[in-house]
Amino acid sequence: MSEVYAARRARLRERCNAGGSPSALVSRPANVRYLAGAAPQGAVLLLGKSEDLLVCAAPPEDRPSEGRPDENLRLHILSGGGDPAVAAGDLAGSQGADGLAVEEHHLTVARHRALTSVAPSLQLADLGGAVEQLRVVKDEEEISCLRIGAEIADQALGELLESILVGRTERHLALELERRLVDHGADGPGFPTSVATGPNAGRRCHRPTDRRVEEGDFLSVCLGATYRGYRCEIGRTFVIGTSPADWQIELYDLVFAAQRAGREALAPGAAYREVDRAARQVLDCAGYGEGLPPLTGHGVGLEIDEDPQLSPSAMGKLDACVPVTVEPGVHLPGRGGVRIDDTLVVRPEADGGPELLTITTKELLAL
Amino acid sequence: MSEVYAARRARLRERCNAGGSPSALVSRPANVRYLAGAAPQGAVLLLGKSEDLLVCAAPPEDRPSEGRPDENLRLHILSGGGDPAVAAGDLAGSQGADGLAVEEHHLTVARHRALTSVAPSLQLADLGGAVEQLRVVKDEEEISCLRIGAEIADQALGELLESILVGRTERHLALELERRLVDHGADGPGFPTSVATGPNAGRRCHRPTDRRVEEGDFLSVCLGATYRGYRCEIGRTFVIGTSPADWQIELYDLVFAAQRAGREALAPGAAYREVDRAARQVLDCAGYGEGLPPLTGHGVGLEIDEDPQLSPSAMGKLDACVPVTVEPGVHLPGRGGVRIDDTLVVRPEADGGPELLTITTKELLAL
Repeated sequence: MSEVYAARRARLRERCNAGGSPSALVSRPANVRYLAGAAPQGAVLLLGKSEDLLVCAAPPEDRPSEGRPDENLRLHILSGGGDPAVAAGDLAGSQGADGLAVEEHHLTVARHRALTSVAPSLQLADLGGAVEQLRVVKDEEEISCLRIGAEIADQALGELLESILVGRTERHLALELERRLVDHGADGPGFPTSVATGPNAGRRCHRPTDRRVEEGDFLSVCLGATYRGYRCEIGRTFVIGTSPADWQIELYDLVFAAQRAGREALAPGAAYREVDRAARQVLDCAGYGEGLPPLTGHGVGLEIDEDPQLSPSAMGKLDACVPVTVEPGVHLPGRGGVRIDDTLVVRPEADGGPELLTITTKELLAL
Repeated sequence: MSEVYAARRARLRERCNAGGSPSALVSRPANVRYLAGAAPQGAVLLLGKSEDLLVCAAPPEDRPSEGRPDENLRLHILSGGGDPAVAAGDLAGSQGADGLAVEEHHLTVARHRALTSVAPSLQLADLGGAVEQLRVVKDEEEISCLRIGAEIADQALGELLESILVGRTERHLALELERRLVDHGADGPGFPTSVATGPNAGRRCHRPTDRRVEEGDFLSVCLGATYRGYRCEIGRTFVIGTSPADWQIELYDLVFAAQRAGREALAPGAAYREVDRAARQVLDCAGYGEGLPPLTGHGVGLEIDEDPQLSPSAMGKLDACVPVTVEPGVHLPGRGGVRIDDTLVVRPEADGGPELLTITTKELLAL
């Protein structure tokens, strides 16, 4: 694995050199992990002039689920406490750097100021989202972690569906799903599990309440596992009771059609906004255009919400090996709604098209 | 409750006026909640020249556990998306402010830059930790939330002790505790529950692994509930099996003595570092001075780790009505260790001295 991290750092170094700042300070935890193999609490990565250093406030714990620092990367542990970012600025200066690119979208003003004061001769520049951009296209090792995470989420969801749901609260169902994720080998949930019943169903990122599942409810669930740092996402909507009402079937079929259109639009070279439009216009034509969430999908990886954003104003095109969610939904205030959410990997037509990672059925199940 | 928030904002405004910046932008979520009653995702509070505004990216959800925005505070919802902090800068300018104090320890460089560019005539200053300082001394309403949270944590822990532990993993025990917290009415865990067995026992902030509880282990547990946003903490260490080994009894008695010394040092007017020293010197005299964590306790409230820090270099003195943890511990690499952690409220002698919120026994229980 060590070569992988070195290769990623080499790619970043090329970008930095092109930008005129040969040294860089990476502080955003997911970016540190991507480049260094692990991101111990508070650690930063210095892409130095003569040497790369992982600067940590304390010795890293040995926890496989949190990754292991690349052994070819020198660890610099601050024995006397202090801010790793500030120490890294000092170290960059002592390596003779005169410029240092920092992640202005992550670093606070106070830390930036402290860096300036510890190394006043260092010209600070903005690294911007350079590491986030490198992270968009995944290698097969990364995709394999996402695939395992998706299998775990499918298992946890499948078991829940076999249990009795009526009378249980959203919060309990969410906790139960999170326990099952861990049972099946997840490091933990990839994000707070969302369980939404009745009038809450279909709301994006709904946070579970004490409402209990009732006969006739829509029940929408969104969960994901973290596996070796990689996070996936699956969302499904069910109906409680034997026979869904007509409006429920109609709404479900509509969201299903929108989600399928989004999935089918995934291809290398497809514009982000075209994928969004494919899903969105199905809902729009049916009169639900107002009040839709600003995006119908997003990248996943070391964070649950990464680039690209599949939204009407997004700029850019999909590449092969980019994992994204496709997750349109409609929520009718006071009545509830439907969301269907898959994680897929963009693949060329020749390889069979988009690879579906979350394989739980999308039929409307009555539970 | 509305007057409480208005009074807090009035105190902050006094400080801002004294500092020469009559307007302030509060972005740290716990600070926003403290001053506005709720902190919807991404929301910021503008303490304006003519009017205070809670600036939100979307309409706040109605979730009692997350607080309700003070109804005397005007909500400003960004209908077209965008960054609430940047919008607040624009609003401050349109109220005629020429200076705006921001939380430089929370705001990123990129957001700070965007603020400058949207309102170039606005002189940005640093609000520093002004709100955090206001939050140190709690009112009785806040303490009552902490007290309920502590009761919930005591209940969850008590139930766990009645169940069979041998053979179960740290991760499962942690998940079970978190479920029980919610069962008993917590909004959720106050921080990731720590369960540490055998050689892991006694490590501060240990993150649960797949290690199973074995006969003869030390088992140390640290958990807390969030109740109406307020977070408390309790930590206990037990022995698995009928009779603890001599070294276990000795180590336990030592940490117990250190923890008691820390608790007994809590009084209005006591220096933070004196409380730390009271606990630390007990461990130090027994030869465990090296390798102790940098602090033996800290404040709790809307965040689990707040001011004051009870550490050797901390400056300042305790006031009445400050809730703190007292949590010394010793970890012997390869063997395990002991931590004992209580949440207490500093009270004057005349009121009976420190109020213990976490009342689970501190006897060495053999389970």
